[in-house]
Amino acid sequence: MASKLKRLAVLGSTGSIGRQTLEVVRSLPGRFRIVGLAAGKNLDLLARQVDEFRPRFTSFTVAGKAPTGCELITLEEMAALPDVDLVVIATAGTASLSALMAAAAAGKTIALANKESLVAAGGLVTAAVKKGGARILPVDSEHSAIFQCLLGEKQSPRRIILTASGGPFRDFSLGQKASVTVAQALAHPSWRMGKKVTIDSATLMNKGLEVIEARWLFNVPVDDVTVLVHPQSIVHSMVEFADGSVKAQLGRPDMRLPIQYALTFPDRPFNDTLPRLDWSTFRELTFGLPDMERFPCLGLAIEAGRVGGTVPAVLSSADDTAVELFLNGRIDFTDIPRLIEKTLDKHSGLSDPSLDDVMAAGEWARQAVRAMAGGGEE
Amino acid sequence: MASKLKRLAVLGSTGSIGRQTLEVVRSLPGRFRIVGLAAGKNLDLLARQVDEFRPRFTSFTVAGKAPTGCELITLEEMAALPDVDLVVIATAGTASLSALMAAAAAGKTIALANKESLVAAGGLVTAAVKKGGARILPVDSEHSAIFQCLLGEKQSPRRIILTASGGPFRDFSLGQKASVTVAQALAHPSWRMGKKVTIDSATLMNKGLEVIEARWLFNVPVDDVTVLVHPQSIVHSMVEFADGSVKAQLGRPDMRLPIQYALTFPDRPFNDTLPRLDWSTFRELTFGLPDMERFPCLGLAIEAGRVGGTVPAVLSSADDTAVELFLNGRIDFTDIPRLIEKTLDKHSGLSDPSLDDVMAAGEWARQAVRAMAGGGEE
Repeated sequence: MASKLKRLAVLGSTGSIGRQTLEVVRSLPGRFRIVGLAAGKNLDLLARQVDEFRPRFTSFTVAGKAPTGCELITLEEMAALPDVDLVVIATAGTASLSALMAAAAAGKTIALANKESLVAAGGLVTAAVKKGGARILPVDSEHSAIFQCLLGEKQSPRRIILTASGGPFRDFSLGQKASVTVAQALAHPSWRMGKKVTIDSATLMNKGLEVIEARWLFNVPVDDVTVLVHPQSIVHSMVEFADGSVKAQLGRPDMRLPIQYALTFPDRPFNDTLPRLDWSTFRELTFGLPDMERFPCLGLAIEAGRVGGTVPAVLSSADDTAVELFLNGRIDFTDIPRLIEKTLDKHSGLSDPSLDDVMAAGEWARQAVRAMAGGGEE
Repeated sequence: MASKLKRLAVLGSTGSIGRQTLEVVRSLPGRFRIVGLAAGKNLDLLARQVDEFRPRFTSFTVAGKAPTGCELITLEEMAALPDVDLVVIATAGTASLSALMAAAAAGKTIALANKESLVAAGGLVTAAVKKGGARILPVDSEHSAIFQCLLGEKQSPRRIILTASGGPFRDFSLGQKASVTVAQALAHPSWRMGKKVTIDSATLMNKGLEVIEARWLFNVPVDDVTVLVHPQSIVHSMVEFADGSVKAQLGRPDMRLPIQYALTFPDRPFNDTLPRLDWSTFRELTFGLPDMERFPCLGLAIEAGRVGGTVPAVLSSADDTAVELFLNGRIDFTDIPRLIEKTLDKHSGLSDPSLDDVMAAGEWARQAVRAMAGGGEE
């Protein structure tokens, strides 16, 4: 029995996706064993998680002592542990990229929740995955939906249709958006997510990053990805095939559903802690094209995805920094796309970049945004 | 090249599905060869089809001479022709059942458009398919949708969600329905189909028959099939899995789409004569549970499916006869469920029926309906 447990390393266990991953693990007893837990700075929560799940390995980014019974290793070492069947990458920022590359080189099955690493270095990551014999299972609800729709299909999709809730400011004018508060932007109408991705959802940058992510995960041109606003967040994405048939995946907007799918793939175990769609009440699903003028981040991301090279890394890091400045009250909501656009304008892109080029471009973008915001380093 | 052509026998080539099958064949040149064409009584159209597609074999149910160059064979012979890769069964009535059994025994791949044969004798058909090593590819848009959603999935569905347009009288009261004319009942809001199935759509009997069909095609209990009214006819059906994930298949309501899917499976060739969903205009999809009181045929069918044995055959034949009487102006629209219910009440069902039992029960039901309608034989 014990030998049948799927052995997991969870990188980013104290973040939103990491915590929900452990919720799923907890709700499916007898199915998983946690071999490693890696956190950023939240050592209190990590200690409680270690206490509950008893991993052999742990990792964190601040100074501190490993909990009793745990061996402290680096994030890259954890991503490549031999006795691990599935590596969950739910870390934020650039740390994810090196961990993802390590997991790819080690030929791991990777449940990938971090989109920035594919956005910044999709070409390098997919090459490393192929070379290492690894496999990526997407955790984002949209990409999980697409993955499920493509299951068993012989042919590549003709079009990927990424749905977007439209965020809390779907119907706001530009003037209304200028005075948006941090609290308003963090009140997502349908999804429970971390702060960064919630702000990205409000600007539609999140959807733009997902277009680039889809381009790499499913090997399609950026222009074969269509974004559709779907406020109810029930249809998580769709795939159109050459014959005109469209497949969609639906569910309640709850990240534990795509997380469980990635953890248990190809099984779909019953889990009574997860919500189900209820068709007994009348249901209306609406769809429409996004207003590109009111959501400039989406167009910036699509254009960055088309250009490629170091440009998506600059986009992603500029966004990361601008969102951080907004969350700290240093810039207005509408400054986010403005600063990103100015940074992209200043950037001299490199095609076919190395990992160092990508990291350098990202770091350059962070500094450029901070300098323009007039604040220097945080 | 020629050896790669998929060789087809089309049974029921002059009916609505048969004609649309040949439209698909015509629109995908170089992909198919028509080996056999079988019609009922429409010899004029059959002659034109033979002229165009030059089959080696032909079959029809009235007296007549085979067109030049064609060998006249029985329907059962055509269903089992050795040099045929795919048998399309789009014939109506009991003729389909013996052809389907012959194709099953011959181990054919069968594109099945006739639902009555599975309704009447699902247990016998599925046993024959298994024994003969045959395979059924559903042509009904709903079952094609379910088939597509199940592709590549390891586990059985937890629930099948059959969508129904609700037909032209979705919002009619019982009083309004009593005075419905044949022309009104034949004006289906979204699908181009034959007369019988169009009337069945207006009573929701069609959906009830599809519940029983789904039960056999996908090996699920009748009570795991939920009917959902979806007036736009864009979502053709859905499947819910154990983990709560739901997959749906969408497309424009055009029978050529599921027909092509069955003809070309597992390929999905591009076909510019087929309509595609257009997401550039705002789209609203609505769903709700059907009103079982206003559509008694649906409940009668579900109950017949639960009971099994000869009861579904009685249901199907009683409906067939009642619809015929309605189309001939002999009974009112609301008499259809009334006559079916009375017939079911009179029937002493047999469990585990033989093919003869099923045929006899069907014939008994036809006579019972005619006798109750007060008309004797047509």
